[in-house]
Amino acid sequence: MKVALLGPEGTFTHQAAEEYFTDLQPCFCSTIEEVFESDIEVKLVPVENSLGGGVRDTIDLLRESENNVTGEKLLPINHTVVSSEESIEDVDTVVSHPQALAQCQNFVAKYGLDTREADSTADAAEKLSSGEAALASKVTADIYDLNVLGKSVQDEDTNTTRFLILNSEVGAKPSKTSLILEPEEDRPGILHAMLSCFSGHQINLTHIQSRPTKQELGKYYFYVEAEVHGQKLEKAVKALETYGHVDKLGEYPEAEK
Amino acid sequence: MKVALLGPEGTFTHQAAEEYFTDLQPCFCSTIEEVFESDIEVKLVPVENSLGGGVRDTIDLLRESENNVTGEKLLPINHTVVSSEESIEDVDTVVSHPQALAQCQNFVAKYGLDTREADSTADAAEKLSSGEAALASKVTADIYDLNVLGKSVQDEDTNTTRFLILNSEVGAKPSKTSLILEPEEDRPGILHAMLSCFSGHQINLTHIQSRPTKQELGKYYFYVEAEVHGQKLEKAVKALETYGHVDKLGEYPEAEK
Repeated sequence: MKVALLGPEGTFTHQAAEEYFTDLQPCFCSTIEEVFESDIEVKLVPVENSLGGGVRDTIDLLRESENNVTGEKLLPINHTVVSSEESIEDVDTVVSHPQALAQCQNFVAKYGLDTREADSTADAAEKLSSGEAALASKVTADIYDLNVLGKSVQDEDTNTTRFLILNSEVGAKPSKTSLILEPEEDRPGILHAMLSCFSGHQINLTHIQSRPTKQELGKYYFYVEAEVHGQKLEKAVKALETYGHVDKLGEYPEAEK
Repeated sequence: MKVALLGPEGTFTHQAAEEYFTDLQPCFCSTIEEVFESDIEVKLVPVENSLGGGVRDTIDLLRESENNVTGEKLLPINHTVVSSEESIEDVDTVVSHPQALAQCQNFVAKYGLDTREADSTADAAEKLSSGEAALASKVTADIYDLNVLGKSVQDEDTNTTRFLILNSEVGAKPSKTSLILEPEEDRPGILHAMLSCFSGHQINLTHIQSRPTKQELGKYYFYVEAEVHGQKLEKAVKALETYGHVDKLGEYPEAEK
């Protein structure tokens, strides 16, 4: 399947797409905006990271465009050690993006390695000299024909990115829904009033992000994700519409953790 | 007064500080983190922009550090035309940050000017050749001894930045308060429960931002701003503390609009 996603080849976004789609034909774009503008209908975009929070470009573009959210994918950021050397004993220098090097300090110290910074983890894997290894996504081993000398070498397992899949088929029974809530009024307390529509109909929210409407300071819209409960959700949306505009982006199965 | 703030000299942050403090002695830092780490006690930091939304570094550092919010300042981003030329008729090229050039397209077209990009609006004003004018903050006219050839030349008046002042004196009767809310539990609906503590005690919220705790995906804390109502706020905080940790960052007068 042809899928538009953020490049270059070999990044963690690429890995997420490889794991989600069985027959991926990736079309790499250089910005999230280009992914949304791509003629390729099916798209995969990052929506949230456990360290950085919501991905602003994605949330703003979901509001401004006509796309249907059909799935989500969780990807733990596991750094793999890839090299043309056959053993870690033959490696003296480890190459990666500064963030990846910072996340794997114990591994670097254990083997007493020198470090070299690269523009991206994918770039590191692509341009290795002899005696060097890269910290990168595991898909780079296949792409650049490298040996895997270590798996999940990061110090802590806290870094996870969540992606949304757009305009594909909904694979299983939907359990989540994504909505854009745009209050008509700018009065304080409107958020609490809108959230009451969910709790009043016993619908649990799993995610909420506030984003500026770009019209004036303090004027916000909300991106929310809620559990799906058939007719209850329809009632909640009817109640929400008494406070402002509601855009239903789609229903989809929750990702496996 | 010595104040730590984001540099370099001549930026809009510098202008906000000039307007807020009567006797400013600015100490310029190169990142928001450096402002928080500075030995200078009084600090001025951006917290929100009408186009970009919440300033993540500021909100995360308010949670992680011990600082007292004592004021706020709103600054409309008005682009001023500064030049060593005496008249706009002698100008053929306008220099600025790409964002500023994009925000002043009508002005550029009206006078048929060429454009040159600079790293920042302050940088543009500092390094002007003859026949050039910069789009920059009005403080650059004094700093670099330039003539003001135009004021508020941006196409639309929607871009405003809000700043917080830390560890200064609270100048007038406080009407707003900033709080960090950190839910003990990760269950859905906790945000609605916590917001109920405000509405239950008739306290209006003016701002809310969710930010990841950086522990695991989906675990968030909240930065909120609420109206001050004496004892009612204390009662709301007592109720909030039954759901998690509450950090009161300070009470301060609302900025003039």
